[in-house]
Amino acid sequence: MEVRKVLLTEDEMPRQWYNILADIKMNPPLGPDGNPVGPDALAPVFPMNLIEQEVSPERWIDIPEEVLNVLTIWRPSPLVRALSLEKALDTPARIYFKNEGVSPPGSHKPNTAVPQAYYNKVFGIEKLTTETGAGQWGSALSFACSQFGIECKVFMVRISFDQKPYRKSMMETWGGQCIASPSTETKAGRDVLERDPETPGSLGIAISEAIEAAVTDETGKTRYSLGSVLNHVMLHQTIVGLEAKKQLDKIGEYPDIVIACAGGGSNFAGIAYPFVLDKINGKEIDIYPVEPAACPTLTRAPFVYDHGDTARYTPLLPMYSLGHAFVPPPVHAGGLRYHGMSPTVSQLAAEGIIEPRTATQLDAMKAGMVFARTEGMISAPETNHALACIIDEAQKAKEEGKEKVILANWSGHGLIDLVAYDKYFAGELQNFALTDEELSASQKVFENFPKPELLKSR
Amino acid sequence: MEVRKVLLTEDEMPRQWYNILADIKMNPPLGPDGNPVGPDALAPVFPMNLIEQEVSPERWIDIPEEVLNVLTIWRPSPLVRALSLEKALDTPARIYFKNEGVSPPGSHKPNTAVPQAYYNKVFGIEKLTTETGAGQWGSALSFACSQFGIECKVFMVRISFDQKPYRKSMMETWGGQCIASPSTETKAGRDVLERDPETPGSLGIAISEAIEAAVTDETGKTRYSLGSVLNHVMLHQTIVGLEAKKQLDKIGEYPDIVIACAGGGSNFAGIAYPFVLDKINGKEIDIYPVEPAACPTLTRAPFVYDHGDTARYTPLLPMYSLGHAFVPPPVHAGGLRYHGMSPTVSQLAAEGIIEPRTATQLDAMKAGMVFARTEGMISAPETNHALACIIDEAQKAKEEGKEKVILANWSGHGLIDLVAYDKYFAGELQNFALTDEELSASQKVFENFPKPELLKSR
Repeated sequence: MEVRKVLLTEDEMPRQWYNILADIKMNPPLGPDGNPVGPDALAPVFPMNLIEQEVSPERWIDIPEEVLNVLTIWRPSPLVRALSLEKALDTPARIYFKNEGVSPPGSHKPNTAVPQAYYNKVFGIEKLTTETGAGQWGSALSFACSQFGIECKVFMVRISFDQKPYRKSMMETWGGQCIASPSTETKAGRDVLERDPETPGSLGIAISEAIEAAVTDETGKTRYSLGSVLNHVMLHQTIVGLEAKKQLDKIGEYPDIVIACAGGGSNFAGIAYPFVLDKINGKEIDIYPVEPAACPTLTRAPFVYDHGDTARYTPLLPMYSLGHAFVPPPVHAGGLRYHGMSPTVSQLAAEGIIEPRTATQLDAMKAGMVFARTEGMISAPETNHALACIIDEAQKAKEEGKEKVILANWSGHGLIDLVAYDKYFAGELQNFALTDEELSASQKVFENFPKPELLKSR
Repeated sequence: MEVRKVLLTEDEMPRQWYNILADIKMNPPLGPDGNPVGPDALAPVFPMNLIEQEVSPERWIDIPEEVLNVLTIWRPSPLVRALSLEKALDTPARIYFKNEGVSPPGSHKPNTAVPQAYYNKVFGIEKLTTETGAGQWGSALSFACSQFGIECKVFMVRISFDQKPYRKSMMETWGGQCIASPSTETKAGRDVLERDPETPGSLGIAISEAIEAAVTDETGKTRYSLGSVLNHVMLHQTIVGLEAKKQLDKIGEYPDIVIACAGGGSNFAGIAYPFVLDKINGKEIDIYPVEPAACPTLTRAPFVYDHGDTARYTPLLPMYSLGHAFVPPPVHAGGLRYHGMSPTVSQLAAEGIIEPRTATQLDAMKAGMVFARTEGMISAPETNHALACIIDEAQKAKEEGKEKVILANWSGHGLIDLVAYDKYFAGELQNFALTDEELSASQKVFENFPKPELLKSR
């Protein structure tokens, strides 16, 4: 019997997160006046303990005991050798994936939802607002808030709200409140609805609404929570890669290639950053974030300063961006429908330390089907983008006759996303290609913004 | 940090199933003539290797390597200490649950689907037919068939087919075919539809259809597969209890109480039978199958000979039965809507070795909410019946001031069953109570059948 799963005990769980800010150079976030934004400017939006973490230069940050005690509900997560997929592909590559689908909401998202709820609770916050795309993040934050006894309100992108009603049920089961975005509850939402009453919504719009709902709350006890993009989110997710490294170490393996899908960048950062550290220190390793061809931030957009949200509430962030007003096509991978990309992921891409890939919606779904009929697990549409890249790389390894070790983040299961599979079977899914005209039109919004410097971390 | 999960490595997985037939006395199945049915009579329905297993007197049966290689996709499953639930209940009881929700279809069902698909494949069978209630079993068999490259056709009880469309999508993702039962494809289905075109369907009807579809297939390469009730199913599930025993042993614990929900009896048997063996050998332990108050087989029906299906295709089985024509009320725990009970579970109940409990639909959902907001996991409506009993017993332990150890089977997650939670929030769920008149009316169908003997195994 060949061993499939490499497990860690709870005692072997990492006790610190890795903070990539210690090892790379970053352009600072800028305020409306073009000057760097200090921590205080973020205080109406986030609690100060998380802001401190956001800007911390420390390489290793302790994970609080109270957070570990909740993470153990599902962590450490299994590292699984994709033996059946390898066999089906007849590849010499050894494929390992980190199964983040074992968490209660079914994805990697609670890795940061739990510490965020904890730090807010400690800071005296009683309610969190947030946005969600496909619903993974909104359900993760609802779960986390229920663990610490705080309220949670989720603005869910309209198209996913309609396509995936069970996500709302999950949030309500954990006591969260979920409404479709754009909504009439915020100025940001009303403005969008006035311009385009039939809009499918977007993460950019939903972020605006959630920030507005937090900062306009008169009690002062409400803050906003973001499920990706920001540095404290990326660092909370590094527990994934740190565990994976320990697990591979146990069986004497080290990856040649690390793969994860990338929307805002957090599941990618989670598995990749501990290996990025090795690469910065001289290790040879290929690291691929995989984005949807329909929303090709890293692969087709420029590295610029832009807002993280449509209503321009956030500071200007240095990132690859399709423009803060861009509404991505309605692909089922709702979690990847974001106009920008995490600033740290963007910096690494700008420096060539990581090399972005894309997958089309149909190639991603096809990969998901191959995976379901070999490894058995039904993957989230987002995760299928990583699977498409794994299959490509395993086939390349076969052509080259190389025994490559591939490590991937299986960021979530697709049991709440089965409507995407239904439509795929029915031949109703399509690919979306962004024309060059659409691409340049979408970028007009940041034409007059400052430009980030091309910094070199190595 | 208190340890939550007790894990086993794949090397520590049990290599044999436990067969309770070695330790209890059973009334034989009877044919239409009232005489015991031999193995040959079952040959059109099941492959001979599974029939041999069904009647085997051996206490321990080797698990084939090929089966273990698929089970490792998710097994061994974690044993989880319900620390947060204990704290919320302020109970001195220590509560452990076996998390069977980590399998690809999300329940314990693939524990038997995988070996059944394997034995059929080895016997040269190319297609399996089956029935499914809430869809857990149909999706498990579709998954298992995809692993061994055989076809799968599922008759899904109409009410669940309508309430849970995602289950059909899951089956199709794994290459299975799923149709609503009663259907017009079988005589059994057409007869029911003629009498009652609006019927919600039942497991008894769906079993009739699936058996008919198998035995009337002219290729001779189709067989029927049952997800519960029969002995080979119960024994395949014992891997759950055997793992749990090893896991508890690792931390020096032994249960005072074992709890699982019971519809056909398989998830209950899976966790309980290894402990039933101990009880037969003199150990003091309380073992509770929990059934829905709406379909109270063990608690209100008599121990009789009855058919396992509505159209009377199966032999007469010795079991607690509400009558083979009984159509249970449309509770959301579709997997528990069965008129009968596994003969071995029935025998143990008749002897008083196990002590059945009931839970109402509303008490079960309420327990599921408590669990979701403490342990984080969203449970299947079936599983919620076990949770209601756990909470009762933990509260009793508190009243009595006793440090009881409770072991339960968390038989599956509820992510495909969220419509039940939605209806619960909306106040649209109700309890169903069977009147004494309904109860005695339903039993007329077996009035003239032979009666089982009251055998004593101890």
